[in-house]
Amino acid sequence: MRLRHKPWAKQFIEEHPEYVMTSSSKTKTSWKELFGNDNPIYVEVGTGKGKFLDNMSQEYPNINFIGIEKSESVLVMGLQRLLKDHKSNVRFINGDVLDLLDFFQPGEVDRLFINFTDPWPKKRHEKRRLTYKSFLSLYEQIMSDNAEIHMKTDNQGLFEYSLESMSRYGMTLKNISLDLHNSEKEDNIMTEYEEKFSQKGQRIFRLESYFSSHYPS
Amino acid sequence: MRLRHKPWAKQFIEEHPEYVMTSSSKTKTSWKELFGNDNPIYVEVGTGKGKFLDNMSQEYPNINFIGIEKSESVLVMGLQRLLKDHKSNVRFINGDVLDLLDFFQPGEVDRLFINFTDPWPKKRHEKRRLTYKSFLSLYEQIMSDNAEIHMKTDNQGLFEYSLESMSRYGMTLKNISLDLHNSEKEDNIMTEYEEKFSQKGQRIFRLESYFSSHYPS
Repeated sequence: MRLRHKPWAKQFIEEHPEYVMTSSSKTKTSWKELFGNDNPIYVEVGTGKGKFLDNMSQEYPNINFIGIEKSESVLVMGLQRLLKDHKSNVRFINGDVLDLLDFFQPGEVDRLFINFTDPWPKKRHEKRRLTYKSFLSLYEQIMSDNAEIHMKTDNQGLFEYSLESMSRYGMTLKNISLDLHNSEKEDNIMTEYEEKFSQKGQRIFRLESYFSSHYPS
Repeated sequence: MRLRHKPWAKQFIEEHPEYVMTSSSKTKTSWKELFGNDNPIYVEVGTGKGKFLDNMSQEYPNINFIGIEKSESVLVMGLQRLLKDHKSNVRFINGDVLDLLDFFQPGEVDRLFINFTDPWPKKRHEKRRLTYKSFLSLYEQIMSDNAEIHMKTDNQGLFEYSLESMSRYGMTLKNISLDLHNSEKEDNIMTEYEEKFSQKGQRIFRLESYFSSHYPS
């Protein structure tokens, strides 16, 4: 996401530890305690400005949503919206997806969203794609039994890669759509990217997957 | 495939048991014996007029190819071509894919092609799709260790279904292309359908898969 660097963002984020967890503000407290309820926890990696989370949290008030974003300048926009709306079921993490294990305990996450993340098309950058096997391994460690990954992208190469990477990892795929906006799938909540790309007539690819050992067929 | 019914086709086929195996002409002889060599055996289910097999057998003279086709009126065109060319590495089966176990012994098939088969789009016809789990189970029984299924189709719905069905069955997917003719995949041999569809600018979808228990990663 190309956005102007906001030098004030880091401090602004640090002034709101009630909404944004960072590597310095993280605690041993579980997310259920922080949210103050037992509702399922859905996580979006690379949450950007948090528009998807904002819509989802409104549509599903009985789910807790956590968005992870590395860039302060981007995340701060989601935080500003949250400060205006005071939603009790949304939180952010300002951090790297690689550090997921620092922020979640085993089995704590009930669903994980990977929406329109960087495709890193060059072969030598494969390890940075958020569906590379080492990321899948991180997700597996923090996800609960029966938990699913839901992925959307407009990038065909990343989608082909992700199908293969998840399959090779031993995950099972389901509800695949190779043209989401011309299919009959219901209740799709769009991200910022998705609105922009689909207006241009680009295909949106979507999949759901789960770690097979967790999910008896 | 829409083709005029040829009342003479059945008899013509029965007069050439050296090229076409039928339920009445089938023997206990192994395919390796029939071909007279130990070359790998590649099978195409729903082979139609046999154009793909014709091209493949020319490109790969050290592979034995067997095409299965139910319709006599269609298969007879492949037979006529074969009678002209006298290829030693091509045979046909005039029969139903459901009867695969009558024609092959366990582990006899080294690769299986599913090219542009009927998508059977209605949910109630799911069981007729050649990637339905009961077909996958038939394939698994006749395929050798490390054997792969290679599938191509222009039908998005059938492709989505097949990815899910194979994944749910426990197969591993690889070399997926969601737009074969605009990708960098090499040495693609086209079928009749494929030529027609890709000329119209339609996307061709492709996958390879294997039974995971057969293929250590």
